[in-house]
Amino acid sequence: MPRILGIDPGSRITGFGVVEGSGNQLRHIASGCLRLPTGAFPERLRVLYRALTEVIAEHRPEAAVVEQVFVSRNPDSALKLGQARGAAICACVNAGLPVAEYTPGEIKQALVGHGRAGKAQVGYMVRMLLRLDTTPAEDAGDALAAAMCHLHQADVRARLTRAGA
Amino acid sequence: MPRILGIDPGSRITGFGVVEGSGNQLRHIASGCLRLPTGAFPERLRVLYRALTEVIAEHRPEAAVVEQVFVSRNPDSALKLGQARGAAICACVNAGLPVAEYTPGEIKQALVGHGRAGKAQVGYMVRMLLRLDTTPAEDAGDALAAAMCHLHQADVRARLTRAGA
Repeated sequence: MPRILGIDPGSRITGFGVVEGSGNQLRHIASGCLRLPTGAFPERLRVLYRALTEVIAEHRPEAAVVEQVFVSRNPDSALKLGQARGAAICACVNAGLPVAEYTPGEIKQALVGHGRAGKAQVGYMVRMLLRLDTTPAEDAGDALAAAMCHLHQADVRARLTRAGA
Repeated sequence: MPRILGIDPGSRITGFGVVEGSGNQLRHIASGCLRLPTGAFPERLRVLYRALTEVIAEHRPEAAVVEQVFVSRNPDSALKLGQARGAAICACVNAGLPVAEYTPGEIKQALVGHGRAGKAQVGYMVRMLLRLDTTPAEDAGDALAAAMCHLHQADVRARLTRAGA
């Protein structure tokens, strides 16, 4: 069964989620929010890198997915977010994982069926599809959604391959 | 003799420079430009991380310095630059190095004596102070300048400590 790590990087909180399965048989393996220490940025990146490296070592996903961000915010926020993304991507590639990127629209399309779904709808679908008792915290939910999008795309690719064969 | 690694991170070219010494006795140990592959960003960050990790392993600096950037550019450039900075900082902190940051003005002040020096002046001072045959390429020169700024600040701190004792 393919197992995917989704990451929603942020300079203060980074969400992660590990999902296994295919089609409608999806299983929640782990998820959570990494709260980074305030203070010096290098130390925050070190904590983020280490924590994700531990998540990868513990749950052994075969690929990672990071949401592709379109920054409408100011350049300073974009720089900080970029640093967190850089640390997260380094943790993945240094563990030998391929890293895929999807736009927020692609992730919503895969989960809800259209690209303009709201945050509540995404959270609801994550909860339903993974049969969770409660809706996960937003950053963890977005990370799980990214992982589920990748599994969905893998299904689509497999069906296309079979249809072509 | 303290030995410092300066880094000028960029998403296409990252400059690095290793300088040893104190006061006017500065020695150029190594410098260069890491040209990152075009194409997928995670692969670029992997190459950047690996290359800096090798520079650190080979030259064993005791601290790293990254120029603090003020981004006036668009958020998309800031995000890419942030990712490169994140990968560079991770390579340093994962190798156990403390990471210092200086503003471009602080670096120019330390090298040229005033914070509004032009790029040519900085390059010239790097060449003179390190007794190089030619002016280094811009990114390598900026990295060397950052390292030299840190050594200069260490001298200032040492003099202040002695003056207070």
